[in-house]
Amino acid sequence: MNSFGRLFRVSLYGESHGSGVGVVVDGCPAGLPLREEDFEADLARRRSGAKGTTTRREADAPRIVSGVFEGRTTGAPLCLHFENGDVRSGDYEALRHTPRPGHADLVARQKFAGFNDPRGGGHFSGRLTVALTAAGVVAKKLMPNITIHAELKRDEDFDTRLEAAIREGDSLGGLVECWVTGLPTGLGEPFFDSVESVLSHLIFAIPAVKGVEFGAGFAVAQMRGSQCNDAILDAQGTTRTQHAGGLHGGLSDGNPLTLRVAVKPTSSIARPQDTVDLRTGQPARLELKGRHDACIALRIPPVLEGAVALGLVDLLAQNGGLGQIWGQAAP
Amino acid sequence: MNSFGRLFRVSLYGESHGSGVGVVVDGCPAGLPLREEDFEADLARRRSGAKGTTTRREADAPRIVSGVFEGRTTGAPLCLHFENGDVRSGDYEALRHTPRPGHADLVARQKFAGFNDPRGGGHFSGRLTVALTAAGVVAKKLMPNITIHAELKRDEDFDTRLEAAIREGDSLGGLVECWVTGLPTGLGEPFFDSVESVLSHLIFAIPAVKGVEFGAGFAVAQMRGSQCNDAILDAQGTTRTQHAGGLHGGLSDGNPLTLRVAVKPTSSIARPQDTVDLRTGQPARLELKGRHDACIALRIPPVLEGAVALGLVDLLAQNGGLGQIWGQAAP
Amino acid sequence: MNSFGRLFRVSLYGESHGSGVGVVVDGCPAGLPLREEDFEADLARRRSGAKGTTTRREADAPRIVSGVFEGRTTGAPLCLHFENGDVRSGDYEALRHTPRPGHADLVARQKFAGFNDPRGGGHFSGRLTVALTAAGVVAKKLMPNITIHAELKRDEDFDTRLEAAIREGDSLGGLVECWVTGLPTGLGEPFFDSVESVLSHLIFAIPAVKGVEFGAGFAVAQMRGSQCNDAILDAQGTTRTQHAGGLHGGLSDGNPLTLRVAVKPTSSIARPQDTVDLRTGQPARLELKGRHDACIALRIPPVLEGAVALGLVDLLAQNGGLGQIWGQAAP
Amino acid sequence: MNSFGRLFRVSLYGESHGSGVGVVVDGCPAGLPLREEDFEADLARRRSGAKGTTTRREADAPRIVSGVFEGRTTGAPLCLHFENGDVRSGDYEALRHTPRPGHADLVARQKFAGFNDPRGGGHFSGRLTVALTAAGVVAKKLMPNITIHAELKRDEDFDTRLEAAIREGDSLGGLVECWVTGLPTGLGEPFFDSVESVLSHLIFAIPAVKGVEFGAGFAVAQMRGSQCNDAILDAQGTTRTQHAGGLHGGLSDGNPLTLRVAVKPTSSIARPQDTVDLRTGQPARLELKGRHDACIALRIPPVLEGAVALGLVDLLAQNGGLGQIWGQAAP
Repeated sequence: MNSFGRLFRVSLYGESHGSGVGVVVDGCPAGLPLREEDFEADLARRRSGAKGTTTRREADAPRIVSGVFEGRTTGAPLCLHFENGDVRSGDYEALRHTPRPGHADLVARQKFAGFNDPRGGGHFSGRLTVALTAAGVVAKKLMPNITIHAELKRDEDFDTRLEAAIREGDSLGGLVECWVTGLPTGLGEPFFDSVESVLSHLIFAIPAVKGVEFGAGFAVAQMRGSQCNDAILDAQGTTRTQHAGGLHGGLSDGNPLTLRVAVKPTSSIARPQDTVDLRTGQPARLELKGRHDACIALRIPPVLEGAVALGLVDLLAQNGGLGQIWGQAAP
Repeated sequence: MNSFGRLFRVSLYGESHGSGVGVVVDGCPAGLPLREEDFEADLARRRSGAKGTTTRREADAPRIVSGVFEGRTTGAPLCLHFENGDVRSGDYEALRHTPRPGHADLVARQKFAGFNDPRGGGHFSGRLTVALTAAGVVAKKLMPNITIHAELKRDEDFDTRLEAAIREGDSLGGLVECWVTGLPTGLGEPFFDSVESVLSHLIFAIPAVKGVEFGAGFAVAQMRGSQCNDAILDAQGTTRTQHAGGLHGGLSDGNPLTLRVAVKPTSSIARPQDTVDLRTGQPARLELKGRHDACIALRIPPVLEGAVALGLVDLLAQNGGLGQIWGQAAP
Repeated sequence: MNSFGRLFRVSLYGESHGSGVGVVVDGCPAGLPLREEDFEADLARRRSGAKGTTTRREADAPRIVSGVFEGRTTGAPLCLHFENGDVRSGDYEALRHTPRPGHADLVARQKFAGFNDPRGGGHFSGRLTVALTAAGVVAKKLMPNITIHAELKRDEDFDTRLEAAIREGDSLGGLVECWVTGLPTGLGEPFFDSVESVLSHLIFAIPAVKGVEFGAGFAVAQMRGSQCNDAILDAQGTTRTQHAGGLHGGLSDGNPLTLRVAVKPTSSIARPQDTVDLRTGQPARLELKGRHDACIALRIPPVLEGAVALGLVDLLAQNGGLGQIWGQAAP
Repeated sequence: MNSFGRLFRVSLYGESHGSGVGVVVDGCPAGLPLREEDFEADLARRRSGAKGTTTRREADAPRIVSGVFEGRTTGAPLCLHFENGDVRSGDYEALRHTPRPGHADLVARQKFAGFNDPRGGGHFSGRLTVALTAAGVVAKKLMPNITIHAELKRDEDFDTRLEAAIREGDSLGGLVECWVTGLPTGLGEPFFDSVESVLSHLIFAIPAVKGVEFGAGFAVAQMRGSQCNDAILDAQGTTRTQHAGGLHGGLSDGNPLTLRVAVKPTSSIARPQDTVDLRTGQPARLELKGRHDACIALRIPPVLEGAVALGLVDLLAQNGGLGQIWGQAAP
């Protein structure tokens, strides 16, 4: 479903080439100062522009449709809406019968009996993440003492490999790291709402994510217990190492939370690809024009931060901690 | 929270050293043949006994408390209860003030203000997975045309490393793979209930899981699009490769679903570990006696299958497909 | 919270005197023909204009912001937005410190620490029911074989009493009846989601509703079993009487569903009322100007139909019946 | 579904003539003193015995299966189980093909394709309310400053009418009133989770309830605004009258909450009734033996209190007020 959250609940809507995308944010406490400028920084980080990102210029200025009065949230749902601007649907018309490999084109058509909006991926477009990012901005503002930071892990030859991919009409995957500090101890709700469960649920909703790991992550499979266990240093629970990623028993343990996300290379590439012509059932050769990111992972960090923020703010709210914590932000 | 599922909903309860553990399964269609023997095979796979698993003998015979009449489900909630048998709480008494590294002991104490049941980890114990496995058995029976299989990935020196770990009073992590065949196309509910989201939510609730990846998983971060994209071979959506793990746009695409899970080494080890004495706040040295698994990953496969089955059966139900599909199991 | 529904989920947003109100409808099957004209009939029934309703002229033309492509629903969320037009906030400014009796003014202020939007009741305004009605229109279109009809019960002297109330600057309550035919047998999900539970949950969300009864309703308290029980006439479950309102054990029994709703008189009246001045804590005398309905019950029927439709369509969806049923509406 | 509640969630299971009934209570804060004796008073009020109630003697002693350690709740789910004792299924065997008017027999059979447990109504039995009552006891203990009281409204000739009904093998309906004092202001979550919505959802899950009204209830339909509006007396929101039942805008307003519930007469009566023989489809004459209540309303008050308590405790929890409030109960 297009909504998530028990007490702080977001509901997404919109399509890539429709009139716009947006999000309704329910459960935001009253009194939070909120202006449209507050979204600029994260939206700019997400926006196209850097080398390896699409040249499509999106209208990323949100309109606060509801939920704010005299500069502060009212306790009623926020509706944050983004008009779609620079849309060239014609680019995609030819693709209607030759589904793009790596995309949801074919499976969306099957699920929705052909009624889905196919333009630019419709509701399956990465465009939706602008609304997710915006909701995350609100969540972050509610947790002024908690720092959430994500960034692309650039190994030494990343730029070289990216340039080669661009030159060759190809794309590149990436690894994005995220860490969170300032979390109170004891967030997470056993059995099913471990912090890992809630965050991975949100993170895997971000298009192109294929793996999520916490702390030492997949490396734990090769470890011994004596090596993996985080020795406890004091009664507050400070640990010598953080192989568990700041999470024990699914609960935040007071140490920094760390996670990593695997992002697949952009599916839309200029190089010819094999697909099928749905009219004939015969093999077809697909050459995409349009404007695409060569490395979608470049734009993921603020989206990932947003997803993480949404999960944490809802867990905080369930612990009765939201009012208290955001209260420190108020004048 | 201790319940999960929109239409097929499980609610867990119980503690490691209390009177028992169990699960209420709501939303199971009426008419499914169900006997206590149906649980034996998966519970035996999960049970201790193999080299590297605990010598604690658990009473793993479920009692069907409700929801079955004359050998078939009635449409009312199933309550599946497991009495706790071979419990030696004394083993754990000494640990009350010296939390075990790698366990939830300390954070559970903090979250629940010291009122949590500390015996054997209480509600945080891996013992709860017996109930999860049992619920998964019901889910699997409802999907007779879908095969879910998980197994520990044993590389060549696994047995050598395991024996060394046991000998040295240590433990070992592991990697568990799972694949699913027979899935209909189009399962998953955008935006937030991608198949990956729902499955990872459930899987990360299993104690000791620190990473989840689908298809090529973390390897996609190093791939190019031309390499990662799964070429489409026919109008049904058969793909040449399955780097996406049978999932596009968060939806099942008709190809086999594959995932891998990183399981950390058992936290309870015989080797001395550093912790804190909560009475004094001073460093303490912990030597665990008790009976423990050396490699909990050995017991994870049926638990993982259960978690995956619960997620899939709920998504099937949301697509109206449950009645139809389970119907084929009825006489 | 501002969302409701398990598979067919609506999320409301907006305020009386903000930029608009709207609703996100999630879970609507793909392929339903939907145009903005489809909403006209019910919105006109709800709109002001008849004797006893406000002279405020609302911009009740919905904009379909998302979820429709080439005239049909796509399976993605519908966003239906209503701009607010004829707004005179100045009318309400004076009221900020003298809460209106019968309204949420004071309690909203207390709940939201004074940050709530006070203009025209803000998010508590009956204006929100335009979005509820619109969502109900979609729900009704998905159930073409089910008829839902509500109307004000006008006893013989209703018009006389209404005219007197208007003349005297007062208002009038009303009783609204609703009946539903064509329901399949067995809707409703024990224990907590009886049809009565789901419908009353939605109906009591409509401002001004103070009572809900099904079938013989409150009259059953005076009946004997031999009189109240509905004799069963055939194997399909046709009953001689329908004192149970077409609901047994919380499930639809195949007979017409009937319910009645008590609507309180409009709280905003011209006659002077006693309240408090929040600045001084002293008693105050309130004389409302503005434009108000004399009998809000006159406008409730399409809203009530919408609420009932939303509950029924969600229960149908949970029974896997939605696709099947709406399919009959498609060309 | 058989679970209810956002943060304080109950999940019911069991059947009238199966091995037992019970409830899993999730979200109960840790540290609440809880013993099996705590349930006695409310269970005794609900138990049969008074004139007009069944002679069946139920084993109403709950077993606390999980969630309590050393006399206090642990924060893990409570499982409260009631064994079924004095069961005479033979009484009901003959009824299998002649559904009882006023009961769920026929509709349950239709919904569950004949697989439902028909003995004593199975999962549809009023027996389930023993578990609801027990969960309500926990909820009440968490709100020591809030008083919830329900009682049958006995008009002057109630006893006379009851005796006549018993004498004639018939049954009688009743009206049950409930009032709540000590509620904080601002409970309830717009738009859909008005206090009325949440409470009526729970109350209509109680078998035999056909109407729910708050404050002046159905009488408001005949009132004028000048008469119905509750004049505000001070800045805390004390009102001169309480026609709104202590609820404005769906929120608790600080005044006593009042509601009334219409309970239909027990459906099982000794007098012959018309039904159908499902084997032949022909009319049949039903004469019930068994042991039945003549006036189920006599036993409703503690059940109603329980339902109300469950709704209020969940709303309190959503306002972050649960910890704070129950804290006052702790030593």
